[in-house]
Amino acid sequence: MLGIGDDAAILKPAANRHWVIATDTLVSGVHFKPDDPASTIGHKSLAVNFSDMAAMGAQPKWVLLNLTLPAVNESWIKAFVQGFSQLLNQYDVQLIGGDTTRGPLSIGVTVLGDCEQPVRRDTASAGEAVVVSGQLGSAAFALHHPKADDACLAQLHTPQPRLELAASIKTMATAMIDVSDGLLADLGHICEQSGVGATIELERIPIKPVIQTSDDWITHVLAGGDDYQLCFTIKACDQHRLPADCQVIGRLTEDRGITVTHHQKPIHTGLTGYQHFAHE
Amino acid sequence: MLGIGDDAAILKPAANRHWVIATDTLVSGVHFKPDDPASTIGHKSLAVNFSDMAAMGAQPKWVLLNLTLPAVNESWIKAFVQGFSQLLNQYDVQLIGGDTTRGPLSIGVTVLGDCEQPVRRDTASAGEAVVVSGQLGSAAFALHHPKADDACLAQLHTPQPRLELAASIKTMATAMIDVSDGLLADLGHICEQSGVGATIELERIPIKPVIQTSDDWITHVLAGGDDYQLCFTIKACDQHRLPADCQVIGRLTEDRGITVTHHQKPIHTGLTGYQHFAHE
Repeated sequence: MLGIGDDAAILKPAANRHWVIATDTLVSGVHFKPDDPASTIGHKSLAVNFSDMAAMGAQPKWVLLNLTLPAVNESWIKAFVQGFSQLLNQYDVQLIGGDTTRGPLSIGVTVLGDCEQPVRRDTASAGEAVVVSGQLGSAAFALHHPKADDACLAQLHTPQPRLELAASIKTMATAMIDVSDGLLADLGHICEQSGVGATIELERIPIKPVIQTSDDWITHVLAGGDDYQLCFTIKACDQHRLPADCQVIGRLTEDRGITVTHHQKPIHTGLTGYQHFAHE
Repeated sequence: MLGIGDDAAILKPAANRHWVIATDTLVSGVHFKPDDPASTIGHKSLAVNFSDMAAMGAQPKWVLLNLTLPAVNESWIKAFVQGFSQLLNQYDVQLIGGDTTRGPLSIGVTVLGDCEQPVRRDTASAGEAVVVSGQLGSAAFALHHPKADDACLAQLHTPQPRLELAASIKTMATAMIDVSDGLLADLGHICEQSGVGATIELERIPIKPVIQTSDDWITHVLAGGDDYQLCFTIKACDQHRLPADCQVIGRLTEDRGITVTHHQKPIHTGLTGYQHFAHE
């Protein structure tokens, strides 16, 4: 245990707040390539956890870092810490502990945050609008097209957790999740846990035009992970209050399953996430 | 994130309590052998973190588990969960989240606990008595002597976190740590952080007689890790209140460094921990 130099870090919670805690492990060769720049690995390992905080409508406060390294490579560690610390400082979050272990390269991050009232996944209702932030499919496009433009590559390697956006819409969001596994899979979690279905209009989902140069662009948009945008639901009467960066892409329905339409016609993409929820 | 099935687990802290959080990663080939029984790996990965809670005088409440596995081996996972759950249930602790990842075998555990007032490492004073619980050196003896008896092997593979003991002495302990890296190293942390030194009488340290069959028994006792006993300090007037399982082994001194004596004569073990602190 690092941090304050005791067996455990000590925290004194404020009264009348909810705490949220999220943890993720990133493994070399699975979640990043061994030769990815260490600073982007540092950034991303923290960003994916901050994204979970955003999805709860919470502010990250404290972080624990478990770093497993095959050997001490000082320049690698320095670059990793630089990427990690930059994001940590950007949101005024404190590293309170963790450990460093010898072994195959992997990074475990645990984030604690707080909020007055967390935004959950199981509290959406039929009739509400489905909203996404930013653009979808960019990270998946970059992953499959190594010559992708810088904006798509940045989305893949140094995603920006949508913490400010989450703070601005958290009181109107009836349910929220971050898009880490792909829109259909993640919206599917909201639908499944809230006991509703959804209809999504493909042409309303914001994308970068460049990704349409790919034959697989619909797959990237509907099932591509790693964008770390937010998907949330709001009451219809709140649509006019949405920030410019957010787009209504569909509606929640009483009927279970997610239907995707393209100019009013249902499309069948054969995507796992889609099929899984469509056939329930 | 598992647990309650959202992006993060939600906790509502009680007012006027301190929270403590500890995390440790156990890597195959470093902290355990790949062919160790999965149930003992499950037990130990939780026990070492519970031991950190004991060292803070805290009760473990919630656990996050990050499991990285090279492949899905159902019988291995079942045995791991059995060892993990048994200890979890024994202390009525709740698994609230974590993740499962593909990669080289490693186990990350994060434990949150609470207490009225944590027992720290930096609050000891010269003149106080140094106390250890249980017996030291058994785990190190078992590690280096594969034919060790069952009691020593159990100390190595399935250490019991001293939570009940910690609860019974936490109000009299002026400082506390768990003996995970060896007595000299761990007592050294208390001394360094409290700005004191210590004199330890080797013959007062409780051991299992069998370990004296090893030529290295003094090293096992003074520098052997993995016993997960408690080392704490108390005021001299509290010595009569110590539980039977605890033994005064020395005194804190104004002079920095740790001196070990054997029947009143200082001994020089050449141990890293000892040398490090003796020569400061």
